[in-house]
Amino acid sequence: MRSNDMTRSPKPLRPWKTLRRETLLKHGRFLTVENHTIRLPDGQVIDDWPWLIIPSAVIVLAQTAEGKYLCFRQTKYAVEGTTLAPVGGMLEPGEEPLAAARRELGEETGYAADEWIPLGSYKLDPNRGVADMHLFLARGARQVSAPESDDLEDQELLLLERDELAAALRGGEFKVVAWAAVIAMALERSS
Amino acid sequence: MRSNDMTRSPKPLRPWKTLRRETLLKHGRFLTVENHTIRLPDGQVIDDWPWLIIPSAVIVLAQTAEGKYLCFRQTKYAVEGTTLAPVGGMLEPGEEPLAAARRELGEETGYAADEWIPLGSYKLDPNRGVADMHLFLARGARQVSAPESDDLEDQELLLLERDELAAALRGGEFKVVAWAAVIAMALERSS
Repeated sequence: MRSNDMTRSPKPLRPWKTLRRETLLKHGRFLTVENHTIRLPDGQVIDDWPWLIIPSAVIVLAQTAEGKYLCFRQTKYAVEGTTLAPVGGMLEPGEEPLAAARRELGEETGYAADEWIPLGSYKLDPNRGVADMHLFLARGARQVSAPESDDLEDQELLLLERDELAAALRGGEFKVVAWAAVIAMALERSS
Repeated sequence: MRSNDMTRSPKPLRPWKTLRRETLLKHGRFLTVENHTIRLPDGQVIDDWPWLIIPSAVIVLAQTAEGKYLCFRQTKYAVEGTTLAPVGGMLEPGEEPLAAARRELGEETGYAADEWIPLGSYKLDPNRGVADMHLFLARGARQVSAPESDDLEDQELLLLERDELAAALRGGEFKVVAWAAVIAMALERSS
């Protein structure tokens, strides 16, 4: 074993086993709640573990050929006041994350990008499922059409310089954790 | 208005208004599901907007006085295989985020830290509430006691160099979005 292989270990880490799952609530296409019965490695059984399913999403930080970053200032129902936000949206049923990312960038901004760098796919919650967040950095973005967003929120498109983006991140202006993640990961890569 | 003040704009962005909320499901202390009736700025009413409440959490990336980062390799029920993770846990009822962060660091690792840098508080989901994630970087961490974690998962504590941490982030080994966020934000600050 290589000493820098952090995904392996002499100590085996044992997963939990799902014994049973039942649907508690189905609320349209945006939410399903399940109850799971789980067996822990030591034999303990938990019979009331809530599990959430909401649609998975793509989140895209797009950078123009001139080096500016596309962000929205917008309202979101769960966020107080206004927030800065990268491009993002839910995957359509059966849609691949990269295809969804290209589609959302086009719909929301009218931009297309040459270079797509996947920044990883992440669980929204470690315990209760919830959704997968697929993060992308898109480089070489250029406007090819008018936006045709079906988003319900008020929003405006901004073009930020790198130092403005970094200041906005540090200032807490990206108020949703997956958005802060994509901004920080993109900045960390370009540092 | 200063031109670099990105939180203001000539265009007013209008929030949505909650007309009614009702509880659909209460599942112990870990989950409440509500239905909200919402009025949009254009007058449109949405009467089936799901809203989730799960406990808010603190997430702490701790760095020792020698510059190493404390991370766990662990299993989590919603994550396939094993994952790297910073310290973290739920807020107790009424607990302040910083107090929870100090408590979780102590319980999970036996470490205490001199310097606490808040990296912001973020919504887990922009649309459906879910929870607040309070992110911290703790510097000057030193072991002061034995860990006394009540976590149910198998886990082991690792001490990573900065370049190992950055490589693990890029390699997708932190598999939960709030964890990737705190790692990237800490790395971005120290770059």
